[in-house]
Amino acid sequence: MNSGELLYSGKAKSIYAAEGDDEAIMVFRDDITAFDGGKKDTLSRKGSFNSRVSGFLFDYLGKAGIKTHFVEMVNDTSMRVRRLEMIPLEVIVRNIAAGSLVRNYPFREGTPLSPPIIVMDYKDDARHDPMLNDDIILALGLVNADELETIRQMARKINDLLIALFDEVGITLVDFKIEFGRYNGEIYLGDEISMDSMRLWDTSTGESLDKDVYRFEKGDVMDVYRRVAEKILD
Amino acid sequence: MNSGELLYSGKAKSIYAAEGDDEAIMVFRDDITAFDGGKKDTLSRKGSFNSRVSGFLFDYLGKAGIKTHFVEMVNDTSMRVRRLEMIPLEVIVRNIAAGSLVRNYPFREGTPLSPPIIVMDYKDDARHDPMLNDDIILALGLVNADELETIRQMARKINDLLIALFDEVGITLVDFKIEFGRYNGEIYLGDEISMDSMRLWDTSTGESLDKDVYRFEKGDVMDVYRRVAEKILD
Repeated sequence: MNSGELLYSGKAKSIYAAEGDDEAIMVFRDDITAFDGGKKDTLSRKGSFNSRVSGFLFDYLGKAGIKTHFVEMVNDTSMRVRRLEMIPLEVIVRNIAAGSLVRNYPFREGTPLSPPIIVMDYKDDARHDPMLNDDIILALGLVNADELETIRQMARKINDLLIALFDEVGITLVDFKIEFGRYNGEIYLGDEISMDSMRLWDTSTGESLDKDVYRFEKGDVMDVYRRVAEKILD
Repeated sequence: MNSGELLYSGKAKSIYAAEGDDEAIMVFRDDITAFDGGKKDTLSRKGSFNSRVSGFLFDYLGKAGIKTHFVEMVNDTSMRVRRLEMIPLEVIVRNIAAGSLVRNYPFREGTPLSPPIIVMDYKDDARHDPMLNDDIILALGLVNADELETIRQMARKINDLLIALFDEVGITLVDFKIEFGRYNGEIYLGDEISMDSMRLWDTSTGESLDKDVYRFEKGDVMDVYRRVAEKILD
């Protein structure tokens, strides 16, 4: 396989082959989408904010013992990653009721969830990422029972670590979505952790500091992404 | 409370007060509905078929050790039941892939599911009965963790018992929906188990013997209900 070959292109990231078969280059583009791709834009510097925040968070989680695909930043919009065999699960961890949880169930927005709620959706755009339960996950063979337990434990630990980090900069981690894959037979955290994949509220004002600003046109989304990046990276 | 007062009226059954506060009379009406109430009809003898089959199955499960609300048949369309505090869960047990499982996920219709898949939906017409997972069930406080485990174990045992019964009369139990409630602090099986709430296939021909005949206009639904009632009750 030639180095640099495009392996995969998603809604906001592209993956290219790296020198070795076990690594890849993940490029964060300036594209932003919402509502299942129904709303789309290209916003200058967006890739850079998300790439640098993701890299920082992967590094932070890695140092705390979480196995992640992150190897190193290549430049402001690209990182070298381990090439995982991705598992088609969207693992969503919720600390406070918001978004689809409030739309679909009788939770009031802003209600603290203790313990946090973990939801797993089947990553399949054509099916609109339907929600799963453990029985369906196992029947579909997406993971085995041990892997499912590992993913759940990792998600809880990642949540604890991210809550602590954001708390120090005055940000409340409302919820976030992560994805996992297999690497040498073990479960690794992959994909990204960014303002696209987290719901973040300013702890004092309650203001949205994430893609909800774009979804619901609450203000200048790139200004908000820049503010979170500065708080985290400085 | 006066005996005979209407306590609750659903899409196909009505519940009336009985003499004591701890019992009620469940009346199976001739109404049939499908697609979230989008399709509705009244079919002569439907209430009688479902009532008698439900009564027979509750009695059978009760003798096998399952706590149910069933006390006795009052007449062909009514039964005396214990008055449960109902839990708003639709507990669906699936032995073979069909229906919404095939529409929402990459299962091929007719695929055996071993072990069976249990899905729990939130019983709420206005929200279109959204699917739950254990974390959401507990966060909503619908049941506690012990009750959830009891419900799951009872659902598995009920499934085993029903599979065995239908197998003897040449019918394959594809899936079914049951509901539970509390009575004197314990979990009891409530609601109904009928051709409205089960998906049944003729084991030799694969023919539908349940409400799918009505949903998808596959033939004379009352003739099918009558055939199942005769096989079970004779």
